[in-house]
Amino acid sequence: MILDREHIAETYKQIQDEITKGLEILDGKATFDEEIWQREGGGGGRTRIIQQGSVIEKGGVNFSAVHGKLPETIKKAFGVDEDDFFATGVSIVIHPQNPWVPIIHMNIRYFELNENMRWFGGGIDLTPHYVIEEDARFFHQMMKNVCDKHDPKFYTQFKTWADQYFYIKHRQETRGIGGIFYDKLTKEKTGHSELELFNFSCDLGRTFVPTYTELANRNRDKKFSDREKQWQLLRRGRYVEFNLVYDSGTRFGLETNGRIESILMSLPAQANWAYDFKPESGSLEENTLNLLKKDINWAL
Amino acid sequence: MILDREHIAETYKQIQDEITKGLEILDGKATFDEEIWQREGGGGGRTRIIQQGSVIEKGGVNFSAVHGKLPETIKKAFGVDEDDFFATGVSIVIHPQNPWVPIIHMNIRYFELNENMRWFGGGIDLTPHYVIEEDARFFHQMMKNVCDKHDPKFYTQFKTWADQYFYIKHRQETRGIGGIFYDKLTKEKTGHSELELFNFSCDLGRTFVPTYTELANRNRDKKFSDREKQWQLLRRGRYVEFNLVYDSGTRFGLETNGRIESILMSLPAQANWAYDFKPESGSLEENTLNLLKKDINWAL
Repeated sequence: MILDREHIAETYKQIQDEITKGLEILDGKATFDEEIWQREGGGGGRTRIIQQGSVIEKGGVNFSAVHGKLPETIKKAFGVDEDDFFATGVSIVIHPQNPWVPIIHMNIRYFELNENMRWFGGGIDLTPHYVIEEDARFFHQMMKNVCDKHDPKFYTQFKTWADQYFYIKHRQETRGIGGIFYDKLTKEKTGHSELELFNFSCDLGRTFVPTYTELANRNRDKKFSDREKQWQLLRRGRYVEFNLVYDSGTRFGLETNGRIESILMSLPAQANWAYDFKPESGSLEENTLNLLKKDINWAL
Repeated sequence: MILDREHIAETYKQIQDEITKGLEILDGKATFDEEIWQREGGGGGRTRIIQQGSVIEKGGVNFSAVHGKLPETIKKAFGVDEDDFFATGVSIVIHPQNPWVPIIHMNIRYFELNENMRWFGGGIDLTPHYVIEEDARFFHQMMKNVCDKHDPKFYTQFKTWADQYFYIKHRQETRGIGGIFYDKLTKEKTGHSELELFNFSCDLGRTFVPTYTELANRNRDKKFSDREKQWQLLRRGRYVEFNLVYDSGTRFGLETNGRIESILMSLPAQANWAYDFKPESGSLEENTLNLLKKDINWAL
């Protein structure tokens, strides 16, 4: 099998299809709207948005495969002379209706500049409004399982990476309970062929639906009051802060005139801010804040 | 009269008092809560927050006077060796309840590094959810009046500067209808003494209450339906995008471990995002978008 960019893009597209189908089954009510777009500089994508479902309030599952000339600033940052790039990937953010169901994010991507610069990146991370420890362990176990299938070192490395990456520095709290994150993986750095790295990214993509389906089904029918709803909206405010201030994908997209509506599909339908909100001592909200820290070992 | 940092800080503090008093009179229901804070590196501030008023849903009027050592990154950016800085200012953002009442922002600030680096900065800009042309003209006329009292060139210069600064690049729209913005004014650049520049900043600060009182009173009792409320929430989403992605004060504060709750008081109580919302053709929402552009000459 030849691992070329077309094959990678086609497979990622298939994964987008599988995931949107899986999420529609999970939701049971809403379906995805699709928008197909072309990029002026080359390539394009399929943005799929689901809104006002029974489980999902707002979510996006995007596929894109773009190519063209790298902007000067990025060339400098990469320290390269070549400027013909190709990038393809699938990106997901799901904001659920019920505060007991967590927000989830996934991304798998491939970047190619030349024969020697072929990178894989991606990850899945979970942002519960209320951290439920059993669910957190289940989630990390699923991540560990997919990592272990490919390399016994992956989970620990990529889990630590996620703790570092999904961190709201100005709040000194993690975005959620982390997950796995990896970037610029090459065969040189990992000792794995590009085909193996690609297969890992596909397996990760295919772990998304069973993982989120389980987490959503565990919690989708739990009752909640205005208190939990308000807390969910405040936590979404933090999610907005992370995405607009720190997320490299978002900032890269905004700086390079990416397709705005596809980039900002990660933002929730509604987010709130309250001045200096402090949860009650001993409350579930306080408990959650205490668990939004790096280096908690959730997997067994 | 000697223009020293203590005098500037004391006067700005007085202006904060005048403004919070004026806004409480305007609101008629809610009052400000004050929090006094100290900065670890030196100095501190008074954060005043008003919430759930009859006119104001959420607003902050902050005073701070801080001093200490400049971080290395900032020293480099300024190209200086000295690192003992002093900065004082008043910052305001008001998010009103009624969608017909505009959001307003004001800042006046003074920065001192040494005898030769004494800068004034600031401005007022208006962000109507619905642009009402008569109100926009009134607002810009008020800004022009205060500028003209000090220098006939100020209004045109600072109005253009505001158009450039309050611009949401990734949306290709201005944040609102602009206003005035100026930064790093020195006696060398302007031909005005520091005392004159300081007096200009105080006059600007004292224009805030009469300007906003007039705009709020014109619109506070106007009826609105869910449609206007939803539009207000979407416009607030844009406000969040501007502040977290572009606003230098916000980003400077986040990067230098400023007092988070004081910095992020500019965010609204609630903001919404809808995927690819397009206003109806011929609607007031569409009319507003058409007026969120640079270089509209609002003053007579």
